[in-house]
Amino acid sequence: MTPHFERVCIIGVGLLGASFGLALKSRAMVGTVVGVGHRQSSLDTALECGAIDEAFLGVEAAVQNADLILVATPANLVIPSLETALAHAPKIAIFCDVASTKADICNWAASHCKAPRRFVGCHPMAGSEKFGPEHGNADFFAGHTCIIEDSDDLCPDSRETVMATWRALGANMVEMEPVLHDRVLARTSHIPHILAAAIATLAARQGDIREVIGNGYRDTTRIAAGRPEIWRDIVLSNANAIHEGIAEMQAYLRDFADAVESRDSVALERMFEEGRDARMKAVEE
Amino acid sequence: MTPHFERVCIIGVGLLGASFGLALKSRAMVGTVVGVGHRQSSLDTALECGAIDEAFLGVEAAVQNADLILVATPANLVIPSLETALAHAPKIAIFCDVASTKADICNWAASHCKAPRRFVGCHPMAGSEKFGPEHGNADFFAGHTCIIEDSDDLCPDSRETVMATWRALGANMVEMEPVLHDRVLARTSHIPHILAAAIATLAARQGDIREVIGNGYRDTTRIAAGRPEIWRDIVLSNANAIHEGIAEMQAYLRDFADAVESRDSVALERMFEEGRDARMKAVEE
Repeated sequence: MTPHFERVCIIGVGLLGASFGLALKSRAMVGTVVGVGHRQSSLDTALECGAIDEAFLGVEAAVQNADLILVATPANLVIPSLETALAHAPKIAIFCDVASTKADICNWAASHCKAPRRFVGCHPMAGSEKFGPEHGNADFFAGHTCIIEDSDDLCPDSRETVMATWRALGANMVEMEPVLHDRVLARTSHIPHILAAAIATLAARQGDIREVIGNGYRDTTRIAAGRPEIWRDIVLSNANAIHEGIAEMQAYLRDFADAVESRDSVALERMFEEGRDARMKAVEE
Repeated sequence: MTPHFERVCIIGVGLLGASFGLALKSRAMVGTVVGVGHRQSSLDTALECGAIDEAFLGVEAAVQNADLILVATPANLVIPSLETALAHAPKIAIFCDVASTKADICNWAASHCKAPRRFVGCHPMAGSEKFGPEHGNADFFAGHTCIIEDSDDLCPDSRETVMATWRALGANMVEMEPVLHDRVLARTSHIPHILAAAIATLAARQGDIREVIGNGYRDTTRIAAGRPEIWRDIVLSNANAIHEGIAEMQAYLRDFADAVESRDSVALERMFEEGRDARMKAVEE
């Protein structure tokens, strides 16, 4: 059954927060959407877009009477926002987030929420190089995976409601334990972003490359165009798994460099084969 | 003026060789196209597609009476093919190639061709994950950069003819010194391929990732689907520049890992900013 909420509070009205508001409203899943932002200008834009109905500069007043609270701030602000929201929201409220790292947040929630926990960590994997509420859209999450934390201490009803809400917005739900989530996402998303920046940076040191770049450069560096401050915060929020993943990458590059140095054609072909097979198994295009 | 050839010999009738034949024929730039291959089956396909008019299993007979000879074999076979072609082709013949590394080939040509040199090293930057003559097409090179070697010992007429030929096929010509070409391409193409394979390989070690990959993984690993044997040969033909480029990448990752370990948010943001700026300068999308 599609959930219906009286009053949803969205903390952080950027691209994801605004899309969540538009998605709920276009599906008639909500009475009133309340938005919280740092800057009046973002709130005004979100109001103009119809993503929110009411705007607040502080969490405390905004969560009054809310039955669903979504934290959609940058990763480093999720815990402080959640802390304030938990202290002031009604007892019946359900909480979730959209942060792309989960271990720290879910771990904090496990030790700060009353059991059974009504905060359910989420990571909708929709993304865009665009940002800001003006780019929000009601189908932003449709057709994308949304990862939901697999933890023992969740309130089963809250978990069900959150799951049903994302499903109603068109997301494909996948459950994953938070620490595993961060290990996997470090390898599938965060380290690819770091390498995209690295490729772009090192290639630029060769001078003006505009006329000699091909699809390889274009594809591998596309995500380097993402917002530096967002990626800084993601890296800081998943520092341990990323550090471990970089060490794996360094070991891989050592092996590859050794094979290049010794002109080991068998090893080189095997490494390219393994990469191709892994890619083809992961993505069907 | 668009060049016209009586008899063009294409050594290697894969995707690029077949596209070259189709491109010349569709523009009425050639009398007869002769193809050379290792396998009769590829030659038969190239004949059926209309990419070539005559087929040979050996270079020696095929280059008789040719006025233009294109070497379109994998990188490691360019020099041996060229050596045979030079020994048996008419004195008036002009030679070029399509290999994606240039220093070894052009260096070899400089010391083995009579001056002024009638071999002109080329690197058309059109590419595809597809391969084989059946995927050839007459506009394969159109709209793409073709790099031509910038060397002092070229026969000016041969250089002009090769340049005019690629231009007639729609390519944008860029001149580049062969050693610089290989240094730049190592950073813009070869190392991105190695990293695409690395990302795919290391992510796969986390288990079944199919449901949790996003656009970052998809974009950065797309080129990992390329043919392992082709990339093995490209790496071997540009080993020194690639080894140097991997060392640069390892130094970059050491710096990044240090910034992660010390939670240095300023350094992390600066590295992402530098990558974003480099990407945006290189590609306008």
